[in-house]
Amino acid sequence: MQKILVLLEIDEEQKAAFREAAGENEIVFLSNTTQNSISRVDGELLRDYDVIIGQPRPSALQSANRLKWLQASISGVDIYQKKGVLREGVMLTSATGAYGITVAEHVFGMMLGIMKRFPAYRDNQRQSLWHDEGSVKSPAGLDILIFGTGDLGSTFAGYCKAFGAHTIGVRRDPSKPAAGIDEMHGMEDLEDLIPKADVICTMIPHAEEMVGYFNYERFKRMKQDAIFLNAGRGTVVDSMGLYRALEEGWLFGAGLDTTSPEPFPSDHPLWTQPRAFITPHTAGGDHLDSTLKKVAEISLENLKHYLAGEPLRNRKL
Amino acid sequence: MQKILVLLEIDEEQKAAFREAAGENEIVFLSNTTQNSISRVDGELLRDYDVIIGQPRPSALQSANRLKWLQASISGVDIYQKKGVLREGVMLTSATGAYGITVAEHVFGMMLGIMKRFPAYRDNQRQSLWHDEGSVKSPAGLDILIFGTGDLGSTFAGYCKAFGAHTIGVRRDPSKPAAGIDEMHGMEDLEDLIPKADVICTMIPHAEEMVGYFNYERFKRMKQDAIFLNAGRGTVVDSMGLYRALEEGWLFGAGLDTTSPEPFPSDHPLWTQPRAFITPHTAGGDHLDSTLKKVAEISLENLKHYLAGEPLRNRKL
Repeated sequence: MQKILVLLEIDEEQKAAFREAAGENEIVFLSNTTQNSISRVDGELLRDYDVIIGQPRPSALQSANRLKWLQASISGVDIYQKKGVLREGVMLTSATGAYGITVAEHVFGMMLGIMKRFPAYRDNQRQSLWHDEGSVKSPAGLDILIFGTGDLGSTFAGYCKAFGAHTIGVRRDPSKPAAGIDEMHGMEDLEDLIPKADVICTMIPHAEEMVGYFNYERFKRMKQDAIFLNAGRGTVVDSMGLYRALEEGWLFGAGLDTTSPEPFPSDHPLWTQPRAFITPHTAGGDHLDSTLKKVAEISLENLKHYLAGEPLRNRKL
Repeated sequence: MQKILVLLEIDEEQKAAFREAAGENEIVFLSNTTQNSISRVDGELLRDYDVIIGQPRPSALQSANRLKWLQASISGVDIYQKKGVLREGVMLTSATGAYGITVAEHVFGMMLGIMKRFPAYRDNQRQSLWHDEGSVKSPAGLDILIFGTGDLGSTFAGYCKAFGAHTIGVRRDPSKPAAGIDEMHGMEDLEDLIPKADVICTMIPHAEEMVGYFNYERFKRMKQDAIFLNAGRGTVVDSMGLYRALEEGWLFGAGLDTTSPEPFPSDHPLWTQPRAFITPHTAGGDHLDSTLKKVAEISLENLKHYLAGEPLRNRKL
């Protein structure tokens, strides 16, 4: 008999579906999550479970001696892939597929808002100022470079195409197609594509070799009126380099939902650079109800596979 | 021989196309426009022309004694339809069709930004504040009511559908279809639709009988978490009624690109209501380069029709 712990904020109907899937196995529901989804459950509590579904704190997993499988409720699971967090042999699956809509909508809204100069209009509004800020941009006909074409990048690309843009994807394996991408390239083409794109949007998970990749020199190699967006991990951006480029009149604007570190230090000058727009890592998480529903669906499907001894979806370890 | 005056900011290539269309007729180009497109040409200058293409000040048209046709470079031509502006028998055509993309993109960006709480995030940013504002909305699955389904409303509807929304149109003649509208209604259904819609977007031109239609009582009949948008004429909204409803916790947010009067008075309390987002009538006009190109295309096509004695497109008078 397996003991299953579900740390998701789900309703009675969804709980019933999990109970049915669990059959004779023991299943426990705990909904004690913080606003950013990381479950505040004590390590002791995790000791007895074979399966955990949710987003437990990595440090709390030290006591999970019986754990065989962690179904994370998040998409980027690097916090659980670090050495020492999960014992050798414990399976890890992500909730990739649940966050495409919420993140892509947020980033598309940032892009369109920057194109229409909404951050400046909001600043003017706070001073009761009716002032025309001049010409705007449209996605129609632009070349939009999307770095990372998984669920997030592919969904974002689809929205861009609905507004008439041409989408250029960059991914490790360019032979793998992605919906919404007009033209796919491998990593080796990225440097050459940077000066040609009208919009550059990064959607990649954390990768050691990409830390600080978007630095001052690369921002200055972009078109002077390009728009830069980041909704992957904040570590890919050198934020002082971005600040310097913006101060020198480079880029039409930049939209960041992720920074490094997080929270972004209150004394960083990028906060008050007029053409930077920052949101506090709120594109994903549990901000949209439909995301939670999809996380539950993915988890339930994987639970059925697990109990039937079948391969799991979104396997990361 | 006809004398034609073109008051559009167009390039040499476009001028050549107008010259070719004009043939043996006299054609003069003047580009002396203000930021909001209203040409600052003197009335005396207009005296000799049979055809004017552009946006002359209505008062300057008093001296245009020879005028037979005004091709306006704007979409809402109510300023030229007022009594006494154009002599009896002068033809008036609009540039309807040129503004769909620019206005619809702006309004869609406002809607998505309000759904993602961007105005609040921008306000927080100005205080270097990393603070999660909580749950957000998605257009997916929402009922979006579009009041006025011409070029602007229809283009906006198409964007909403690309994000998974259900679009409900309201127009005077519901038997006339419009691209992007899932469900079309006549004016008589508007009152019943107001409490059911998740988003209400008005795109109608100025109409005397609609002045102040969206008042306090109607805002309070909307869903408490509805979003209200106005990109038609500002006169349709009672702005103090909107302010009161927002202050009482009604509506998720409101986005206005047009107000009454304009500029919006700096002492109006709506400026600083946190859930109101105001832009200074910049959705249309000459803010997007591609709009000017389309205005020129529509005008050129009509000039050819006019000189061939054929019916004109977008005839308003």
